[in-house]
Amino acid sequence: MVQIGSNRYGKSEIRVVRVARGVAPDGGDVIRDWNVSTALSGDLDDTHLTGDNSKVLPTDSQKNRVFALASEMGAVPPEDFALALAAFFVASQEAITRARISVEEFGWTPIGATGYSFARAGDLVRTTTVVHDATAGTSVVSGIKDLTLLNTTGSEFWGFPRDAHTTLAETKDRMLATAVNASWRFRPAAVESADWDAVAVAAQRTILDTFAATYTYSLQQMLYALGSALVTALPQICEVRLALPNKHHFIVDLEPFGLENEREVYYADDRPYGLIEGTVLADDAPDAGLAWT
Amino acid sequence: MVQIGSNRYGKSEIRVVRVARGVAPDGGDVIRDWNVSTALSGDLDDTHLTGDNSKVLPTDSQKNRVFALASEMGAVPPEDFALALAAFFVASQEAITRARISVEEFGWTPIGATGYSFARAGDLVRTTTVVHDATAGTSVVSGIKDLTLLNTTGSEFWGFPRDAHTTLAETKDRMLATAVNASWRFRPAAVESADWDAVAVAAQRTILDTFAATYTYSLQQMLYALGSALVTALPQICEVRLALPNKHHFIVDLEPFGLENEREVYYADDRPYGLIEGTVLADDAPDAGLAWT
Amino acid sequence: MVQIGSNRYGKSEIRVVRVARGVAPDGGDVIRDWNVSTALSGDLDDTHLTGDNSKVLPTDSQKNRVFALASEMGAVPPEDFALALAAFFVASQEAITRARISVEEFGWTPIGATGYSFARAGDLVRTTTVVHDATAGTSVVSGIKDLTLLNTTGSEFWGFPRDAHTTLAETKDRMLATAVNASWRFRPAAVESADWDAVAVAAQRTILDTFAATYTYSLQQMLYALGSALVTALPQICEVRLALPNKHHFIVDLEPFGLENEREVYYADDRPYGLIEGTVLADDAPDAGLAWT
Amino acid sequence: MVQIGSNRYGKSEIRVVRVARGVAPDGGDVIRDWNVSTALSGDLDDTHLTGDNSKVLPTDSQKNRVFALASEMGAVPPEDFALALAAFFVASQEAITRARISVEEFGWTPIGATGYSFARAGDLVRTTTVVHDATAGTSVVSGIKDLTLLNTTGSEFWGFPRDAHTTLAETKDRMLATAVNASWRFRPAAVESADWDAVAVAAQRTILDTFAATYTYSLQQMLYALGSALVTALPQICEVRLALPNKHHFIVDLEPFGLENEREVYYADDRPYGLIEGTVLADDAPDAGLAWT
Repeated sequence: MVQIGSNRYGKSEIRVVRVARGVAPDGGDVIRDWNVSTALSGDLDDTHLTGDNSKVLPTDSQKNRVFALASEMGAVPPEDFALALAAFFVASQEAITRARISVEEFGWTPIGATGYSFARAGDLVRTTTVVHDATAGTSVVSGIKDLTLLNTTGSEFWGFPRDAHTTLAETKDRMLATAVNASWRFRPAAVESADWDAVAVAAQRTILDTFAATYTYSLQQMLYALGSALVTALPQICEVRLALPNKHHFIVDLEPFGLENEREVYYADDRPYGLIEGTVLADDAPDAGLAWT
Repeated sequence: MVQIGSNRYGKSEIRVVRVARGVAPDGGDVIRDWNVSTALSGDLDDTHLTGDNSKVLPTDSQKNRVFALASEMGAVPPEDFALALAAFFVASQEAITRARISVEEFGWTPIGATGYSFARAGDLVRTTTVVHDATAGTSVVSGIKDLTLLNTTGSEFWGFPRDAHTTLAETKDRMLATAVNASWRFRPAAVESADWDAVAVAAQRTILDTFAATYTYSLQQMLYALGSALVTALPQICEVRLALPNKHHFIVDLEPFGLENEREVYYADDRPYGLIEGTVLADDAPDAGLAWT
Repeated sequence: MVQIGSNRYGKSEIRVVRVARGVAPDGGDVIRDWNVSTALSGDLDDTHLTGDNSKVLPTDSQKNRVFALASEMGAVPPEDFALALAAFFVASQEAITRARISVEEFGWTPIGATGYSFARAGDLVRTTTVVHDATAGTSVVSGIKDLTLLNTTGSEFWGFPRDAHTTLAETKDRMLATAVNASWRFRPAAVESADWDAVAVAAQRTILDTFAATYTYSLQQMLYALGSALVTALPQICEVRLALPNKHHFIVDLEPFGLENEREVYYADDRPYGLIEGTVLADDAPDAGLAWT
Repeated sequence: MVQIGSNRYGKSEIRVVRVARGVAPDGGDVIRDWNVSTALSGDLDDTHLTGDNSKVLPTDSQKNRVFALASEMGAVPPEDFALALAAFFVASQEAITRARISVEEFGWTPIGATGYSFARAGDLVRTTTVVHDATAGTSVVSGIKDLTLLNTTGSEFWGFPRDAHTTLAETKDRMLATAVNASWRFRPAAVESADWDAVAVAAQRTILDTFAATYTYSLQQMLYALGSALVTALPQICEVRLALPNKHHFIVDLEPFGLENEREVYYADDRPYGLIEGTVLADDAPDAGLAWT
């Protein structure tokens, strides 16, 4: 016999841009450029088993709510938006007991003197995921995506075990590059009161500063340095999860061409790549509950 | 104070192609075209905290092992390869207590009469993930990725709740399209003895047949139909997880141009899209353990 | 002083799916799944210089015409559709003297017994580009995109010049893989009368057969073999342009691991890749005119 | 009978990173992060017709030359690199009479105080293409790719012709967004002496300033404004080609939800999109020759 297990449904990648005219400190516009995804869970067995949709709020309605809420709330931080949206679905749909809202925010930099002109800041994708559960409460996980960083030196890799398949040379000087994918979980108290934009700015600054300041013997060491710096710098958060691809830059062997390569010429390889994943927590981090689901 | 939590590391997207010459039933070559990713866990605190790499088998060595093992094992099913690879890392590296190996297999169709010529079967990406843990044992999850299917009719969507943001019309006839992403977990007993290729073929056949044969009132209903058909048809598996994007094909309103549109002209929209995720289990499915981590 | 040079504008990537119900030989549906792009040229200086749009048919209207024409014409070959669409814009808009219409057609394979169920044939992207010019007449270029093919042997590469930067070893046996991107120009007479679908099928068949049957010493030789086979097999066409990436599959050096590699284990590299581009023409090919613009 | 027409071959997407240590004004490192592609033409009939490779410098050798030249030249502007590389192939290979070299340069911004730490500037892809022909001489075309810009207002679109398929409303206020793809051809005299980096900086500045400062009635008008500003501001160049996708941001109709939408909530659509392509030239622009081939 067969049964339905955990499930959820929603609308993915709703691309909403909210403009607030003339409210920037310099009198210009503020824009929030978002990619919003919703996922609802609850008493949904009927639609799976019989196609009875009486408890299935259409994903089209969820999309409409995103647009309407963006109108009502203004150009607010994505965390505030996601919190309100998640709470709305659980409060208004009896069958729905849990909502997961995720938002990607794309950055824009003002240009010119118009107050309404912007250039896309390609290096800045800010993320947030809110899970609102009728029983378990509400969690907020925010983060940053694909922030590509590189140290041309200041990294070594040696002292590793050598098995029958190890041909890699040890190195006291390598280029270290990665795309930082980091997510930080807010403490329950902070969910009520955090200054989301300030945390986002501080987190990005911490990542850049730490990456530059950390001399490493492994990418794992960088991961821990980034995570612990974030947890230490930001009392609002209690846990950081990082995924750091090792974007390999190999030194090119120029000897066959009669040239030395004194750490000057590298090639950037696509695949395969190392991938380092890890979690850094405050010692007093409360249980994560549904935050990462 | 701060601590390191769960972590893993490995080499991602190792693109290995294994040819076995002349062993196909018709005397032609057999090829296995794989994208292999490794992830090892264990006693790795030192490298995170101090950069001491004495327990960190380089990801380069992991890559080399993939190539060597492909040589040794031949053009075997990806599940057999992943099982052997995962067991190898845990057995040979004292610090490593868990290995997660995932493989994407790209399909090729023989062409011509040479026995060595092939065309890439773009619609066939077969997947497998093996988790081998020193304590918890071994799991196998296999699946299929982005198998895009479409019914031009045979689907309705109505009877859903209408809230303040619902503008969607009910429909008794819609086009239904999705990209099937499905993963099935093997029963522990089957991990010892499954005919992996036979299951993969049977699963794909079951998906195609069920998709065509199922008249639906919601995509959730299709999800359950696919999952329960797989669990029923394949005694080797006990759980199926599916993620089905609703690849919306909207009927175009041609009335402004004086034309009727009797289910003839649709436009395929990219974003946003519905996303239906769910699990279907056998009633006697054992605990999943680490299978989905 | 500054002037405006050649220019064009239109709507790109209009994703239209045309269903013709019950007209397949077996009584099932026929579907045409297209990605249509339009580009119009003509007397358009005003909009560039002053923003006067009195001659600028909106790209939104162009899109609407695509949907309306798909309704009117039915599930016809993409060449017929593009010819009609291009002629329409030039005939109906006085300022427009040239239209360029391109269509990508995605293939679908019937599944099950419903007559309305299909699986996407991922390996089949058929293309066509029609240029209709009020003065110069009409051209049709059709083709195929990213048809990935592989010979596990039957290819050598040696006898090349060795300069100061040549380290490549000669080989009498290599794996040869490419993604065939080919476009064929129809003769003017054929534009009036070609059986477009038949040519598309024959061209694809010719490519597969030729790729399998051709023993090569260079990818250039394969390019010429493919092009000349097409020109020879299809009297309707007079010119073929091909772009063949050399999808490198390098033999892995397993000697460090005490293993031989008798043409068994390869790795598929992404970048860099060789790229071979060339044209093959019938001796009596008429001038291409605007066909490739 | 069949013949070979124009053709070329080379290595595409060679990802070379050149570091020059300590040479930045502040004593830090300078890096050039490039994606280099080569394409050689000449007396190459033999390899196409018979597989005789005696005139075919391997693409692997071309790649090696890229690395060696990066070593020899240092962290120079990509134009200087491409000029030297193109000249080298034509000078050193008797059969090769033309070389086309294209380079994408990815930008990096220094971070921290190390002098060796950088963050990828995701919004900055600089391009150059050099064609060096033994007979026709040398051309340089440089540019910028996917610089995404947006005006939240300052754009109208009205006064266009309305045909049977026109349903679009006129607007006196729309959001205008595009990804600027622009290439500028240098005058022959400038090829000898241009300050490439200075032109690149000035061109980007001109694009940003012009985009912000230009009130538009059509995207074509913006195209001409950008092109003419570039040709006017930069005496080194004589021609600009632009491709501007209209990244549609549609105002959302919130009336069904009882809300007004006073230019506040937009959705960003992916496909279809308008595409405006055009050329702006100096009146005295010399013939382009092979520059754009």
